[in-house]
Amino acid sequence: MRILGIDPGFNRTGLGVVDIDGAEVKHVWHGLCETSPGKDFSGRLVLLRDEIRSTIERFLPAVACVEALFFQRNVKTALTVGMARGVILVTVAEAHVRLVELTPSQVKQGIAGWGAADKKQMQHMVMRLLKLAQPPRPDDVADALALAICGGFVAHHLEHVDKSLTRAAGR
Amino acid sequence: MRILGIDPGFNRTGLGVVDIDGAEVKHVWHGLCETSPGKDFSGRLVLLRDEIRSTIERFLPAVACVEALFFQRNVKTALTVGMARGVILVTVAEAHVRLVELTPSQVKQGIAGWGAADKKQMQHMVMRLLKLAQPPRPDDVADALALAICGGFVAHHLEHVDKSLTRAAGR
Repeated sequence: MRILGIDPGFNRTGLGVVDIDGAEVKHVWHGLCETSPGKDFSGRLVLLRDEIRSTIERFLPAVACVEALFFQRNVKTALTVGMARGVILVTVAEAHVRLVELTPSQVKQGIAGWGAADKKQMQHMVMRLLKLAQPPRPDDVADALALAICGGFVAHHLEHVDKSLTRAAGR
Repeated sequence: MRILGIDPGFNRTGLGVVDIDGAEVKHVWHGLCETSPGKDFSGRLVLLRDEIRSTIERFLPAVACVEALFFQRNVKTALTVGMARGVILVTVAEAHVRLVELTPSQVKQGIAGWGAADKKQMQHMVMRLLKLAQPPRPDDVADALALAICGGFVAHHLEHVDKSLTRAAGR
């Protein structure tokens, strides 16, 4: 199963693609979508939409795992991150890719074993799990890969639930 | 010139369409896009996108005037309103409609003559300007019509500036 992890931001959105087969996790690709602060909001959102769309077309993920945001440092950041997030959710829905949303602490719990793991621990765990030679950088990319890995486990589990429900309904 | 005013919200987005010809302002249509809280975020954003897109296709506005948001009561509201706003901006850009952004106080200043006018005064002024039998309701719709009227004046002015610049360049 292929999963696209997306760490949404207005200036920078981290992207990571992994393949998961049972307990085996494989790194496929990662990248960073940066929108120049010189451009207007609207143009930057269109750029982000194009980048997400082309990443989905290129890697054809079965699942997209997007960070669920509930808290931000301040209202201004929340408004701009919210705009990026809205555009990402609609683009994923348009592409008919299954959406999984996980909070930062769920991802930390899943990757490092506890919900308050710091950035360094997360980068280290992502590097180990994906057998990378170096920790993925910047943080946005490491977070996107962590989201993809956790999203994969969640989606795998949901698939089992779906199958059980189908079997139960067919009885 | 036809203008679509959009008052963005996550639960309710106000829409208003007016025609402006010189100092003459004419009411064309207004509506409210409500997304049910029962649905998931992603589904609600797709619904909003579809509604904005079909309104543009139906009325073919030359300009869309969207409320510029900088402040919100709290971070959670900012995140969800931001999501709606991001989707609206991308949908307007996709349709190649000229975007004008105005703050609530700019709209109040333009319609009621001062930036701190209250909701009742705004509704009354919108009703008078558009020669409506009743004040437009709910607030979201009155705000969208107010945005459309002000956006029209701004766009009209910008067009003059464009023309002057073209003339100056052609000399």
